Amino acid sequence: MPRLFERVTIAGVGLIGGSLALAARRAGLIGAVTGLGRSAANLRIAQQRGIIDRYSHDPLDAARDADLLLLAVPVRTTASIVHACGPALRAGAVVSDVGSVKASVLREVEAALPAGVTFVGAHPIAGTEESGAAAARLDLFYGSRCIITPGRSSDPAALAKIRALWEGVGMRVNEMEATRHDEILAWVSHLPHAVAFSAVNALLDIDGAVAEFAGPSARDLTRVAASSVEMWRDIFVANADQVDAAIARFISVLEDLRVTIARRDESKLSELLARAHAARRQWTTAPR
Amino acid sequence: MPRLFERVTIAGVGLIGGSLALAARRAGLIGAVTGLGRSAANLRIAQQRGIIDRYSHDPLDAARDADLLLLAVPVRTTASIVHACGPALRAGAVVSDVGSVKASVLREVEAALPAGVTFVGAHPIAGTEESGAAAARLDLFYGSRCIITPGRSSDPAALAKIRALWEGVGMRVNEMEATRHDEILAWVSHLPHAVAFSAVNALLDIDGAVAEFAGPSARDLTRVAASSVEMWRDIFVANADQVDAAIARFISVLEDLRVTIARRDESKLSELLARAHAARRQWTTAPR
Repeated sequence: MPRLFERVTIAGVGLIGGSLALAARRAGLIGAVTGLGRSAANLRIAQQRGIIDRYSHDPLDAARDADLLLLAVPVRTTASIVHACGPALRAGAVVSDVGSVKASVLREVEAALPAGVTFVGAHPIAGTEESGAAAARLDLFYGSRCIITPGRSSDPAALAKIRALWEGVGMRVNEMEATRHDEILAWVSHLPHAVAFSAVNALLDIDGAVAEFAGPSARDLTRVAASSVEMWRDIFVANADQVDAAIARFISVLEDLRVTIARRDESKLSELLARAHAARRQWTTAPR
Repeated sequence: MPRLFERVTIAGVGLIGGSLALAARRAGLIGAVTGLGRSAANLRIAQQRGIIDRYSHDPLDAARDADLLLLAVPVRTTASIVHACGPALRAGAVVSDVGSVKASVLREVEAALPAGVTFVGAHPIAGTEESGAAAARLDLFYGSRCIITPGRSSDPAALAKIRALWEGVGMRVNEMEATRHDEILAWVSHLPHAVAFSAVNALLDIDGAVAEFAGPSARDLTRVAASSVEMWRDIFVANADQVDAAIARFISVLEDLRVTIARRDESKLSELLARAHAARRQWTTAPR
């Protein structure tokens, strides 16, 4: 595959930004990579691991002459970085992101975009509870899905290059409206994180000793509560209405199960469990 | 280590019963093993895998002259199997179980126990969402915790042998009251399962297509919804009051997060997430 971008600036060289740089360089999809970030320690790790060639704390220096600016920072920081880097970008550059919320980012970034620069939103649905360049992995994206959300400024050539970038690191790419993305993600990612954070807090409320007996189900349920606080505060606020709705719907389903258990209504209980069991087993055996 | 039991009958040769037989035989802790179950197909797999020496569908035949009857069946089936097997057991035999609910099982089994036979409740906190003898694994228990709940009939010698059995397959054993066990398990296991079943049902309610975009957080959240329906119906009913209380408390904590998100109350949101984050990170790095 020919090179898609010659000079790439990655704002936020963490788990996602760092893993993309590793995988895209290995695949020959991108040329020189400059890291932009606040933590010199993290950027030094990224440089030592060969994720970036150089780094800078200065947006204009980091973005100089870049033909791709990739935003891998907490979602509500995105637009301010575009604003700060914009003047240094090459004419015709592409700006993209990896955020878990798309509608508000699209609105804010398009307002901050310099003339002649195009924005394509993207969200690789992959990750772990870890963060930082030390956690970056070559195979993080392989086999998972990526959603691309075009905006008003997205021209077909830019869209095609961003698609090729994520496909080139092994992802299955879908395109959809930003609001539809946000609805889906509220269910499949934001709700699970809200549940995990709340489950840990509920355990802490009752009795610290209880957690010592946590088995695999409790460990899996709460795993993502170890994720970055700043990143998740931003996601919850940026997608507040959809997350609110998903949590409320989930609570009503769980409340229905609670009442069924309290009433020892065995036939309804079997029905509720069997429905979930059948769907989840199919999900396990389906191709990823 | 000397042999603890010469003739063992395992009622329910599934993931837990089968894994124990594999590990305890390998460690030389038990002699001949007979499987008791309904499914000939499953028992044949167990025999082929060397988990059991022989099997029977007849309780009196399966339990003949056994010095250990291990109950690894859905919790509300436990007492009826003790009743059916009781007359065939060797004098001085030990009956034990592996169930996820202890108070009701203890009450029911002690009522069904023949004279001269002693019961020690046990719960190895290990497992996966799989079931059946095909899923049994030699290393399932290694490094995890086991809770032993003595009852009125538990004599010190029987208690010591059941402890030695689970320690012998690599578990860290704690002893406690059955009601305390049930309270802890409601939190660390029964609640996570209730959440998983409900999360899948909530996803099915809204839109089947959404599940296609499930990333790792949704997969982990819902993994255990693939567990056995019969087993979990029994656990929820047998521990209904404690599970009801744990779900209700969890819902109130999650509802608090929902309202905080809906209000975009960033400082409270940061506090809630940071509390869970710090506790969960410590939990990750703590020795298992």
